[in-house]
Amino acid sequence: MEPTTLAYIAGFLDGDGSIFFQIIREKEKFRIRSSIAFYQKSNNSEILDWLKCQFGVGYIRHRKTGISDYTVVDSKEVFKILKLLQPYVRLKKKHVELGLEILQKMQNKDNFGEIYRLVDKFKDINYSKKRTITYETVSKFLPL
Amino acid sequence: MEPTTLAYIAGFLDGDGSIFFQIIREKEKFRIRSSIAFYQKSNNSEILDWLKCQFGVGYIRHRKTGISDYTVVDSKEVFKILKLLQPYVRLKKKHVELGLEILQKMQNKDNFGEIYRLVDKFKDINYSKKRTITYETVSKFLPL
Repeated sequence: MEPTTLAYIAGFLDGDGSIFFQIIREKEKFRIRSSIAFYQKSNNSEILDWLKCQFGVGYIRHRKTGISDYTVVDSKEVFKILKLLQPYVRLKKKHVELGLEILQKMQNKDNFGEIYRLVDKFKDINYSKKRTITYETVSKFLPL
Repeated sequence: MEPTTLAYIAGFLDGDGSIFFQIIREKEKFRIRSSIAFYQKSNNSEILDWLKCQFGVGYIRHRKTGISDYTVVDSKEVFKILKLLQPYVRLKKKHVELGLEILQKMQNKDNFGEIYRLVDKFKDINYSKKRTITYETVSKFLPL
């Protein structure tokens, strides 16, 4: 991809996109879901089709609210996209750096407790109010 | 400015910015105000400071709603900015083209009726619901 295409996408992400990590509970197990998402009014959603073509992964959803999103959740793909955008992102620089650290540790199957702690830290920089499962919850289930 | 910087700003504008024209009534006279604006949550407003540094014009406002904006209204400056971003903009390509046409006609002091008609056309592509003064209103005051 051209540097100006990547810089454009980085600007679009900074303007109206998001990067987030969620701790998903499946019975007694937890897993981490990473996401990179771009939003736009549904009547402008060709720009999301264009983004999907650029990366060749992910899916587009058209919400009843009139907002559409293009989202990638596969952690290896999210890693690749963040690596590509890293040199050009400004507003979400910290998100990209910390996101790459988390995804790298997930790929290396590093200590889960440490990864969950980083996910909590990520949520702090995202000012998330929706956080339900924190490291504190997870730690009760982790081996000592 | 670097091509990747311009491409980044074009992406930011497409993601979360706007270009608009307003017909302003001053007693029995009308004039056209052009604006290019970038928005962001006030706690991320450094990105707006950075944008202002890049262009060296315009002003930043911090709204009580927690949203800040960086806006340029001087028509010559708006023209320059649109010219710089034109090669990189995707979603707002039509806005930029039509905006440049209007601003060019304003600079040339072309037929006002024609300019007002283009401003109306611009509002149509912006899906503006706030339009109060249209070409129809203005035409009553124009010489035949």
